Amino acid sequence: MTEMVIFGTGNVATHLFQRFYDSKNVRVKQIFNHSPESLEPFRSKTETITSIEDLADADIYLLALKDDVIEKVASGIKKQDRLVVHTSGAASINILEKFPHRGVFYPLQTFSKNLDLIFPEIPFCLEAAKEEDLKILENLAGEISKKHYHISSEQRKKLHLAAVFVCNFVNHLYSIGEDICSKNEVPFEVLQPLIQETSKKILNSSPFKVQTGPAIREDQSTIETHLDLLKNGDQKEIYRLLTKAIQTSHGKKL
Amino acid sequence: MTEMVIFGTGNVATHLFQRFYDSKNVRVKQIFNHSPESLEPFRSKTETITSIEDLADADIYLLALKDDVIEKVASGIKKQDRLVVHTSGAASINILEKFPHRGVFYPLQTFSKNLDLIFPEIPFCLEAAKEEDLKILENLAGEISKKHYHISSEQRKKLHLAAVFVCNFVNHLYSIGEDICSKNEVPFEVLQPLIQETSKKILNSSPFKVQTGPAIREDQSTIETHLDLLKNGDQKEIYRLLTKAIQTSHGKKL
Repeated sequence: MTEMVIFGTGNVATHLFQRFYDSKNVRVKQIFNHSPESLEPFRSKTETITSIEDLADADIYLLALKDDVIEKVASGIKKQDRLVVHTSGAASINILEKFPHRGVFYPLQTFSKNLDLIFPEIPFCLEAAKEEDLKILENLAGEISKKHYHISSEQRKKLHLAAVFVCNFVNHLYSIGEDICSKNEVPFEVLQPLIQETSKKILNSSPFKVQTGPAIREDQSTIETHLDLLKNGDQKEIYRLLTKAIQTSHGKKL
Repeated sequence: MTEMVIFGTGNVATHLFQRFYDSKNVRVKQIFNHSPESLEPFRSKTETITSIEDLADADIYLLALKDDVIEKVASGIKKQDRLVVHTSGAASINILEKFPHRGVFYPLQTFSKNLDLIFPEIPFCLEAAKEEDLKILENLAGEISKKHYHISSEQRKKLHLAAVFVCNFVNHLYSIGEDICSKNEVPFEVLQPLIQETSKKILNSSPFKVQTGPAIREDQSTIETHLDLLKNGDQKEIYRLLTKAIQTSHGKKL
């Protein structure tokens, strides 16, 4: 049985707590947060602590904290020979450098507290300073998910950047679609099957290879009609830039 | 039994042909295209014609043609009292103005020839010059799909524009994600659960309301790290512009 203490009570901490709580081979011994209120939902399930002085011994200290507090909180951990990992997409493994057994346990997913995620599908990006610890993290990921990858800090930084494009920026394009619909009294649901199909299409195909639309067709008359229709300055600029980017990346003349 | 002639053999024509061919209450009497080779796949199922002189009488002439040839092909149709509809997202109903019974039958979906689409989910955008014809188009859509909407030519133009954002441009962002992965030797599949979850999330929520990421958090240090990491000029510009657009649309200071 692996004994674990989880640091943090945010979305990632909450999801990981629940999964490990339900798992067979991991026992969440404590959950830590400075604020007693945030610990309320966990009180019936495990020991909650607000002071790092009360930290119990455990095999793994899992820091599911915001990037800018990881180092500070970690500095309070006295037992330096335990495996200490953070769950951040952007922070390097080396912000834990005072721990010889340090690692990263980064679930690449968009977490909101209420959404039920299909946890076994979430890819865990693992990194450890020592080979033996990587094995431990693999087993840990295996308890709650079917997928894990060895990803270096350098690669993880790039993945986190890529995630901004395919998640945050994609969502903003959805919201431009929503805005255009609402301004024209068309229900946004009309676009849903197209949106869902567009994301499903790339499950089996390279997005580069399945690019469609006026930009790649070099359909200048449609492009100009669209630019004329767009009154919002940012939307017009986005249309122009993405059209250009599609054409450039596909080697079209401009 | 409604008798129909389909004009065109492209993706939309092929899909519609197959669905109407399988339907109970529609009979596809002929399929028309100038090129005999393109008609080959249909020959065992219906009469194929390459000259508009051979056009049979029918209740509906369905023009599943490229925008720039609709008008020209339609001009060859002698029977002006039949219901003549096109399937274009961008063309106005009025390019068929010589037909008193004109209409639009636009399936809002991304079609590729080989992909199996869940047809009943495809929204059909319907428009007709006469109320009675709208009824006919509703029944027609009802034969092959569960969803149809009354959409004017003006609205349809805007929907088509919105589709460029949520389909073509989204796909380009996917392909930036793919590019970043491949340059860093990370399999693109690591991003798939995030991509799929991002599109699923907006099935029940407004994309505007579920926006996440460094832009809306005003996490300037992550934004700057990301801009530093981006070497490709277009990708850098897209990152900058979309970050600004997210902040502006959410009323953040710049």
